[in-house]
Amino acid sequence: MNESAAGRGHHEHLERLEQARAQILELLSRQAVERDLLSRSEQRRPDVVAALVLRQQQAALEQRLAQFHPADVAFVLEGLPPGGRRAAWSLVRAERRGAVLLEVSDAVRRALLAELPPDEIVNFVGPLEADEIASLLAALPADARAAVLARLDQAEQVEVRSVLSFPAGSVGARMNFDFITVREDTTLEAVQRLLRRRKPLPPHTTQLFVVDRDNALLGLLAVQKLLTEEPDTLVADVLTPEPVFFYTDDLLDRAVQSFERYDLITAPVVNLHRQAVGRLTVDSVVDTITERVQRQRLEEVGLSEEADLYAPVRVAARTRWQWLGINLITAFIASRVIGVFEGTIAQLVALATLMPIVASIGGNTGNQTVALVIRGLALNKLAPAQLRLMATRELAIAAYNGALWGSLLGVVTLALYGSLALALVIAVAMLLNLVVAAAVGMFAPVMLHRLGRDPVRGSSVILTAATDSMGFLIFLGLAAAFLV
Amino acid sequence: MNESAAGRGHHEHLERLEQARAQILELLSRQAVERDLLSRSEQRRPDVVAALVLRQQQAALEQRLAQFHPADVAFVLEGLPPGGRRAAWSLVRAERRGAVLLEVSDAVRRALLAELPPDEIVNFVGPLEADEIASLLAALPADARAAVLARLDQAEQVEVRSVLSFPAGSVGARMNFDFITVREDTTLEAVQRLLRRRKPLPPHTTQLFVVDRDNALLGLLAVQKLLTEEPDTLVADVLTPEPVFFYTDDLLDRAVQSFERYDLITAPVVNLHRQAVGRLTVDSVVDTITERVQRQRLEEVGLSEEADLYAPVRVAARTRWQWLGINLITAFIASRVIGVFEGTIAQLVALATLMPIVASIGGNTGNQTVALVIRGLALNKLAPAQLRLMATRELAIAAYNGALWGSLLGVVTLALYGSLALALVIAVAMLLNLVVAAAVGMFAPVMLHRLGRDPVRGSSVILTAATDSMGFLIFLGLAAAFLV
Repeated sequence: MNESAAGRGHHEHLERLEQARAQILELLSRQAVERDLLSRSEQRRPDVVAALVLRQQQAALEQRLAQFHPADVAFVLEGLPPGGRRAAWSLVRAERRGAVLLEVSDAVRRALLAELPPDEIVNFVGPLEADEIASLLAALPADARAAVLARLDQAEQVEVRSVLSFPAGSVGARMNFDFITVREDTTLEAVQRLLRRRKPLPPHTTQLFVVDRDNALLGLLAVQKLLTEEPDTLVADVLTPEPVFFYTDDLLDRAVQSFERYDLITAPVVNLHRQAVGRLTVDSVVDTITERVQRQRLEEVGLSEEADLYAPVRVAARTRWQWLGINLITAFIASRVIGVFEGTIAQLVALATLMPIVASIGGNTGNQTVALVIRGLALNKLAPAQLRLMATRELAIAAYNGALWGSLLGVVTLALYGSLALALVIAVAMLLNLVVAAAVGMFAPVMLHRLGRDPVRGSSVILTAATDSMGFLIFLGLAAAFLV
Repeated sequence: MNESAAGRGHHEHLERLEQARAQILELLSRQAVERDLLSRSEQRRPDVVAALVLRQQQAALEQRLAQFHPADVAFVLEGLPPGGRRAAWSLVRAERRGAVLLEVSDAVRRALLAELPPDEIVNFVGPLEADEIASLLAALPADARAAVLARLDQAEQVEVRSVLSFPAGSVGARMNFDFITVREDTTLEAVQRLLRRRKPLPPHTTQLFVVDRDNALLGLLAVQKLLTEEPDTLVADVLTPEPVFFYTDDLLDRAVQSFERYDLITAPVVNLHRQAVGRLTVDSVVDTITERVQRQRLEEVGLSEEADLYAPVRVAARTRWQWLGINLITAFIASRVIGVFEGTIAQLVALATLMPIVASIGGNTGNQTVALVIRGLALNKLAPAQLRLMATRELAIAAYNGALWGSLLGVVTLALYGSLALALVIAVAMLLNLVVAAAVGMFAPVMLHRLGRDPVRGSSVILTAATDSMGFLIFLGLAAAFLV
């Protein structure tokens, strides 16, 4: 027993997963070699022994995958190139395909589902819960989705449609229906009898919902009360009367905050009449957090969706055009600012050498301000008073560091070019551009946030556009005025 | 009952928190006005009525804060400037101070603790668990930490020292000691009697640890088995025999992955002899995830630690020097590359105008590659075979987009400057620099990861240094060779 428990220590476990992945890849390359040999060999007689070995390996691998947790199978699938992924998918037993699909990333899910006919999809979504079916259907094109929906039984169709009707990013779209309700005038003994009939209990059942006759939420009953209190106690006497709950149309992000703040495992979801309609669990919350982090990291660099690492090159290239275009436009504008001063540069070519320093340091320090503001916004820390305070601080820091580092850059310039005037110009330009950077670094995320846009997504582009153009303008403008 | 439950709907709740924060700020400004009036007024007689009103408001606010969840009090504290924070802290009742301190950010915790004498700290850490005390002590300077530790009782000292001995980022440093162990030859009825004696159960007790006589972990007993199985069942017959568990020195990040992947609520932590020594719970995991995200976002722009938004300007400015210095050096190197070509630029000043475009687009597209690689690394997706595949893809995408957008830029250049040779040079330079960007965008995070460094932290600096310098070198070098 001890031995087998040791087998789940995660180090060894991860190694086993990597092994399985390597085996699939090896199997694939063997098959490829096989095909290659077949097509090349003069006599077109297949090598029976080799084929048999292959089939045995395949069967062994299938059995191996069947022992893994669906999330582990998903992990193996994620790391395979498209050909290998399809091969591995065919090794997953039909009854586990739904569970595996739930665990893979959106892009992989879409790629796998796109190749399956509705009938097959209906087969393996059968054992899933309504919220799980809904999240799989969300990855299907509209017509395939309708075809699968039509094949579900009536009750399930209603639940699935209800989940699908909530907008992405709302609590309703992430809730599940696995909750158990009890009345407040029952005894704990009766509740326990109820639970025994319902076994196995839904995962994460740490609380039961206490509702009135109209199904309106009155409070929660911690499951552990059933263990620690006397059986003849009434639910009403031991319930938690003011639980944290959510409305179906509450923002999921807010719910995530509450889960973090109050260390929740599950929370009830209610409709506008405060009737219990669903349940949010911490595992969805954890998924939401990690999905958001990954999405934001990609969106920050203009990859608008979780791009599958293995999508065709042309498709992948095209997803990057918007970002390329935006950046080309801002770079072009900055370039036109320089163009205005071509006459000045022709007279003093050192300006061309020095100007990128001013622009680039502005961008770098401005991004620090952006990061602080975004964190403040994410933590709900920045009320107007705090914003003003922070703006003053960031400007002061920029001025302080601008004066200090601008002087240093001035001294280096003086040493390199022997011109005090040039040294003064670059020092002042650096100071001014750091202040511009701090101002834009404050302004851009706050403005985007007020406009209801994600500040993570656009702030950096706005900032760089400003610090580049303004950096060139300030430096070359000062040079034109005072140097030539 | 329904009404009060409604009170916890989080919208209304957040509003109440903002209100409390606003009231504290108002109270502060009143006190400031008060002081101001006092010092200005000719007769130095204090306004007794105003003072009384103030004191009443203070008492009301204290009571109000006492009704909030400690995490909510922490939220109110976080958003206040240092003066307000100290004022609010004095309104928090002594017995809740430990719980509140556990919820605030590191920087605020450090600022508040720095002003407290060891005796007072000992007072309010009393009711906390060992792991909680350890995390507060970690925010203290070494001498204050020793002073507090010495004042704890013997048993607690041992536990706290044990937690403190595990390195930050290990499972041991985040585990708690709130677990309940049972033997496999007990009946469920006996277990339930045990629980009734231990009530209230520790939070998140969804599993009990089944151990042998040497305290070695045999499996887990789901608490719900106690509810759904017959009382005379033996633990051995219903335990989960191969639970996911962690060693104390496992990396916390890996544990986080397991929690995500298997939807865990709690998991046992064992020592090298597989004896149960602690428990990891999902709330620490959620905290770990969000802390890491926030830390990484700041580290990406060279803010090495969660800088308190309200630290003095000079201190805050200084924390940014390292980042400024590194960026100034890379910008200076890029500038020296341009300096080499000053002769060429003097002959054709349009080069100065166009060169930042090539450099900046390289940086932007390279950051897309960096983001994809970092995501792959974080998801453990990138085995060597996949890395090779991905590198090929990224280079292909860069070449494809470089050719396409380079041509566009060439056409625009032709239109602006009427020089086909210049247009060709910028088109080729753009193509080449995008390929360089893709190569460095792959190489930098992978190398940092292999060296055991955080790829998020340094990749972008390395990338920008490369794309700027190489961008200028390629463009100006081609121009020097073919244009002038």
